[in-house]
Formats: sequence, structure tokens, C-alpha cells
Amino acid sequence: MKVTILGNNSALPAFGRHPTAQTVTVYGEVVLIDCGEGTQIQMQRYGLKWRSVHHIYISHLHGDHYFGLPGLINSMSLLGRIAPLHLHAPAELKPILDAILEVADTVLSYQLYFHALPEATALITDDPSFTVTSFPVEHRIKCYGFLVERKTKGRKIVPEKCNEYEIPAAFYDHLKKGEDYERKDGLVVKNDWVTEDGPAVKRYAYCADTLFTDSFQDVIRGVDTLYHECTYLEADKAKAVARYHSTAAQAAEVAKKAGAKQLLLGHFSSKYKELEAFREEASAIFPNSLVSIEGTVYEV
Amino acid sequence: MKVTILGNNSALPAFGRHPTAQTVTVYGEVVLIDCGEGTQIQMQRYGLKWRSVHHIYISHLHGDHYFGLPGLINSMSLLGRIAPLHLHAPAELKPILDAILEVADTVLSYQLYFHALPEATALITDDPSFTVTSFPVEHRIKCYGFLVERKTKGRKIVPEKCNEYEIPAAFYDHLKKGEDYERKDGLVVKNDWVTEDGPAVKRYAYCADTLFTDSFQDVIRGVDTLYHECTYLEADKAKAVARYHSTAAQAAEVAKKAGAKQLLLGHFSSKYKELEAFREEASAIFPNSLVSIEGTVYEV
Repeated sequence: MKVTILGNNSALPAFGRHPTAQTVTVYGEVVLIDCGEGTQIQMQRYGLKWRSVHHIYISHLHGDHYFGLPGLINSMSLLGRIAPLHLHAPAELKPILDAILEVADTVLSYQLYFHALPEATALITDDPSFTVTSFPVEHRIKCYGFLVERKTKGRKIVPEKCNEYEIPAAFYDHLKKGEDYERKDGLVVKNDWVTEDGPAVKRYAYCADTLFTDSFQDVIRGVDTLYHECTYLEADKAKAVARYHSTAAQAAEVAKKAGAKQLLLGHFSSKYKELEAFREEASAIFPNSLVSIEGTVYEV
Repeated sequence: MKVTILGNNSALPAFGRHPTAQTVTVYGEVVLIDCGEGTQIQMQRYGLKWRSVHHIYISHLHGDHYFGLPGLINSMSLLGRIAPLHLHAPAELKPILDAILEVADTVLSYQLYFHALPEATALITDDPSFTVTSFPVEHRIKCYGFLVERKTKGRKIVPEKCNEYEIPAAFYDHLKKGEDYERKDGLVVKNDWVTEDGPAVKRYAYCADTLFTDSFQDVIRGVDTLYHECTYLEADKAKAVARYHSTAAQAAEVAKKAGAKQLLLGHFSSKYKELEAFREEASAIFPNSLVSIEGTVYEV
């Protein structure tokens, strides 16, 4: 399970940094979270296939989190996409998208399903490979975080061992569930003789744009990787508060309290050219803090 | 008077090429024509100052011509712009922009004036330095071209010569209009002793996305530079017709018939990696044909 950063900046593009967008890759499925202007080009640049995207999640309707969405939706259609696309976003986005398509006289080549985000914390996607739970965060306008949880695929078959014990392929699904196999000659083949541990459940929490708060601590507790915005450093804490953003130290406090294993920092203000100070400030509180860099892939 | 190409591609970004946007620089004023996704970043990249922009013209509401506009408008506000901005676009854009600002709870730091493009050919901007005339072209949805005409600034003062003949600065405005100066001692200082030819009237026509047509020939006749789309080569003429676009040869025919001095080709389909064939096809019909390249500045 990997996170690829497509944009790590706040609203004003600066120093080659783009507005917010990132993908979470789960068993080959690419989940897009937020879609700032230029996302379609960033995806091309970093080799993320649009056809692997079936779900897009938009945290809130400040432009730096969705102005790349109409272009991406259009481009998918121009390429003749057939697979349905599920868009999860605040309800107010739907009439805007509808109007954009209507004035262009555009009929998409595929079915676009719009799912309005629920006000309260809720499971919103249950895919065979992963789930997504949305939860409210605290921003100037309605804003949501997303918890992406990779499902386990059960035990992992070791084909050579299965052949050695003459286990028919028809029994593999039972093996994945951890069952033993009893042969006709009476030998009981223990599950762990022919399987290995499969991929573990992994949890990634994206906390969008938010004030420093503990209001969503219950949702993110114990996640493997926590993405938390830190638009400012502590020296500009007053600005962070006034604009419903957080500082690097505050992001680290959230990670520490949640018992996260790793913290990914992002959404940097364009006033900062260098980002090392964010890592320093956060890691003094939460050692495993990383500054998210565009084009970089992070293991959850 | 210069044209800077910010995006030379049609809808689908490809090969590092961006969707349509370009600026016309007239006496330091930057006129933005169309604003595809990524325009604000392209302007930063090529050193075009947002504060020099007071007029933006949008040809039509296919996304590759305006999806960069909400981001640019927002960014100008984030930087605390005060100067009013005049947006000239099809009327249907206004409710979309209003909704985008409303859902973000955004109040711009400056006054944004929306001017709906008139159906028929009309003078829409009369600035001290230039005029802009919009004219309908033929596309799948309502679409407009723009004729930008640089005004002359009159005769150009030669200060040393004026000093030599003791002409007071208060008379300079008369000199610019071509008048002679009569000194108190009776000497008549001929205008051309103390002035030079000023910048000439220049005309640039942007023909947006259009079918091959002679319907706007009267407007573009004799322009210094004609920008004409050529999404396709002649080999794909059927596609061009079906999609209300033109070929390189057709663009050249329009330029030839209009008696333009120079042709700038753009809006290339993403099916073409190399662009030299466009220049070859057009220049066989109209020799002074140029392929527009992003970041390149063209003298009108």
C-alpha cells in the first residue's frame, strides 16, 4: 500500500509545488484523494494510470483541492473510458460539475456516479480490496478526512508446497482462510506448511485541511501512516489558527496522540521555499515525521 | 506587440504540451486569451506578471480553454490584488464562477467584472493602448475569436532634439499628434525635426477553435499575425470536420485569403507527437507559417 504525492502545496502554486492531490495504491487499484489544478498532468508525469482509478475523494471545495477534477473527468472521457467512476465529494460540487458539462455540451463516455459525503463519520466505500471511511475535520468550510483501510487477502499460497502435498487448486480458497487440508490417505496438511502470512491490514488516514483538534482522534487511532496538513510553522501559529490550518508541531501532536506509526506532512504555504524546518519541528515531537515531496512514493 | 504561447495543445494534455492559453503584450499590458488548466503555473514559469493582466478573454466553454481560470482568479486574490479584473466570456460562465466562489465562501480581494460576449462581431474593449473586437467563429458550441489591435501612441519624442530647439515639455502632447512648434523668435520647428515615427498600429487575430470557414474573413483581413487552430493534418480532415476543427492546410488557406502577414498554428491534437508536419503542410500554401511552441514569444 503506497501513497504518491502529486501536490504538496497550499492554495498558491510556488517553487514548482502544486496544489493538493495524492494517490493511494492498494493491490493495483489507484485511489485519488483531492485533485488540485494540474493533477491530470502530474499523474501522467508520475506514471499513474487513469484506468486504475475507480474512486475519487474530494475533501472540500476550496479550489486548490478540486480545480483539476473537471479536466481529469473530461480527459478520461476523451480517451474513451468505459469503466464507471465514483466521485465522493461535498454535495455542493454536483451542480457545478453538471453545469460545466452542460455548457460544453459534453456527454461523458462513461458513467460518473456522484456520492455526496455524509455529514458524520461513515463507511463510504467497501471494495473487495479496501474500505474508505470519511470523517469531518475542522476547516473554514465543510471539510472531510478519509481513512483508507487495505483489507487482508488472507493467507498467501505457496504453490510449490501445495504441489508437494498434492493439494488440489480447488481447495486454495480454503487455504487462504487458514484451513488445514485432509488428504485421502489421512494425512492432515497443516495450513502453515503450505501458506505464508498474506498482506496485513493497513490503515492510512488523510486529514485534509484542518485546525488543530482532537475531534477525529477516535477514527485515526493507531493508523500506519497519518497524513496531516501543516500549512505553517509554529512561528506563524496565529495565521494557522485564523485560517483554520495547522502547524508542523500541531500535526506531530495529533500523530503522537493517535499512536500513528508514521506522519506525512503536507499542504505547505507558499511563503516557505525550504521545507526542512517542517520536518525538524514535527520530529522533535513525533520522530517518524516525513515531509511529503511531489513524485515521491511512501510506503504506508 | 508580442504573443507568448502558454499552451499549444488541444483538450488532452500530451507530450508536455498544455491546453490553450496565450498572452498578448501591448505596451506592458498583458492580455490573456483563453486559460486552460495550468495557466497560472505557465505564467509563473514564463515570467508573465499577473498584476499586468487587466483583461481576460475566453473564447468558449470547452474545458481546455478555461479550466485554469478559477485557479488564476483565486490566486490573484490570495496575493491581495486590488486592481479590477475584466473577464470577457460566454454568458454561461458567470453562474459557474459564482457557484465556485460561493461554495468556497470566497470573497475576492478585487472587483471582478464579468462581460458577456455579444453574439455578433463587436468592439468589446477600448483601452488607451489597444482595442479588442470579438467575432463569432464556427464550433460545436458558441465560440468567439478576438482581434487585438494595438493603438499608435503618435509621434515619438526625441528629447535631445526638443532641448536643442528649446521646446517646453508642456507642448510634447502636441508634438505626438504631429504638430509643428512656433517659437517666440518666430522659428517654426518642424515636427519631424524633433520626433520619430512612433509604434505603428498592429493587429493580431486569434481565431479560437473553428471549422474551416470564410465567415469571419472581413474581421481578420490584413492582420499582422493570424493565430488559427489546426487540430489535425489534412490526412485527418474527416475528423477535423466531424469535430468542428481545422487542418493545417485549411488554416493556411484562411491566412492566405485574409492577406495576413504571418500565421501562427496551434491547438494540436494529442495524437501528434511531432509538430513539424503542421508547418510543412501550412507553409506549402502560406509560406510564413509558424508552429506555436510553449514558452516562445512571437513578434506580431
